[in-house]
Amino acid sequence: MSSVAAKKREAAPAANAPMLTTAEFEAAIRAVGAERYHDKHPFHHLLHGGKLNKGQVQAWALNRYCYQSAVPRKDGALISRVLDRELRREWVHRILDHDGFGDEEGGIERWLVLTDGLGLDREYVQSMRGALPATKFAVEAYVTFVREQPLTVAVASSLTELFAPKIHKERISGMLENYDFINETVMAYFKRRLVQAPRDSEFALQYVLANAKNRDEQNACVEAVRFKCNVLWVQLDALHHAYFEPGNIPPGAFRPGKA
Amino acid sequence: MSSVAAKKREAAPAANAPMLTTAEFEAAIRAVGAERYHDKHPFHHLLHGGKLNKGQVQAWALNRYCYQSAVPRKDGALISRVLDRELRREWVHRILDHDGFGDEEGGIERWLVLTDGLGLDREYVQSMRGALPATKFAVEAYVTFVREQPLTVAVASSLTELFAPKIHKERISGMLENYDFINETVMAYFKRRLVQAPRDSEFALQYVLANAKNRDEQNACVEAVRFKCNVLWVQLDALHHAYFEPGNIPPGAFRPGKA
Repeated sequence: MSSVAAKKREAAPAANAPMLTTAEFEAAIRAVGAERYHDKHPFHHLLHGGKLNKGQVQAWALNRYCYQSAVPRKDGALISRVLDRELRREWVHRILDHDGFGDEEGGIERWLVLTDGLGLDREYVQSMRGALPATKFAVEAYVTFVREQPLTVAVASSLTELFAPKIHKERISGMLENYDFINETVMAYFKRRLVQAPRDSEFALQYVLANAKNRDEQNACVEAVRFKCNVLWVQLDALHHAYFEPGNIPPGAFRPGKA
Repeated sequence: MSSVAAKKREAAPAANAPMLTTAEFEAAIRAVGAERYHDKHPFHHLLHGGKLNKGQVQAWALNRYCYQSAVPRKDGALISRVLDRELRREWVHRILDHDGFGDEEGGIERWLVLTDGLGLDREYVQSMRGALPATKFAVEAYVTFVREQPLTVAVASSLTELFAPKIHKERISGMLENYDFINETVMAYFKRRLVQAPRDSEFALQYVLANAKNRDEQNACVEAVRFKCNVLWVQLDALHHAYFEPGNIPPGAFRPGKA
């Protein structure tokens, strides 16, 4: 085989390439996180390392609200495609976790406790008027992906949750330590996710490992995790660009001190 | 005004026609049910009046399973479009009611108790292999409608539930009285819906009355109720044609005595 052909095979495995073993498939998924989950992003290090001012943390929190508040729509889109009742029964937990149910306030409300604690007006946060367009585009790309991709691939796009507990732990300790405007109460969202995310991601991982039926589907699932990492990365890029260097805040976006 | 012009206005109100009052709007919605809800369908009368044999009731139950099992997908599609957390929190009840949640078995399971009681193989029912194509097309048209129409119009398509308690009561009493193969246990689905449907439909009605913003939207909501009545009517037409007159069962569809 020529080295060109070898390179081509490496870049894009043929449609009839042999399936990865379950262990190889899981490793390929986890490798995406090791390479490009947003805990590698410079803005993440600035945020957790206490290098941001309060206005920059506000910008992060109100942009991230767009993502949080879209998650139940994404999960509704997934449920809208699932013929298997058992899978729907499992997946609906995610909607309840985020939106709350009965007396349980839910993750979005806990996120608003964070933005409240940062001194942001709740109506302004919920309106998303001040969020960066790049944030909104990334979030809607995620909802659309889940609505349109094959079901197993759509499930795979949730697997960034495999990498979330580490970032949440870092966030809780780093932000509590480094910012005098952050306290235990406002970090409730992340504490709850430390319990929820592993349960959800373990279920989704087993589903994907069991349901990707050929090498193409396995590849598409790994690509879905890359896609989702991009959804998260884009959001930090946009924050980094707009709020870390002066003069870059786009028209209409949140301006610290003016919310 | 000429009578032609008057007739035209009656048939399709102009885009700038004045809004209906809330009472007029509600009356227009309810009038759709009075005119074309599927309790007017001949097959409904045959079913409830004891005029069908067991095979025909089996055909009804296994076709109707397609509709029941699609309802959570329809509701997931709706949730996927809702920005308002309070509306999602209300709407998710419908998914839980149908799919069940925790120890609660849910409406789809109760429907399978009915098909079990009718002596149908559960795997066969759930596979939907024997369902009429017209049933499946109608059901998927409903899911697509809710995914694609404006949100208020999508909500309005659920309003056939306003008319459901009457048909459920008729169904319970008529079927218990007229068929020796029907008992209280297998009618559990309908008994539960007597409680659930009025709660859901009242919420949806108030939402539609409050959120249709102009006459065009009001008209589209009334049309959505007509559309949904058609979804239900088509299913009974298909059953009536295939199973009431001999010789009409399409290729691949359930044949009584052969499930």
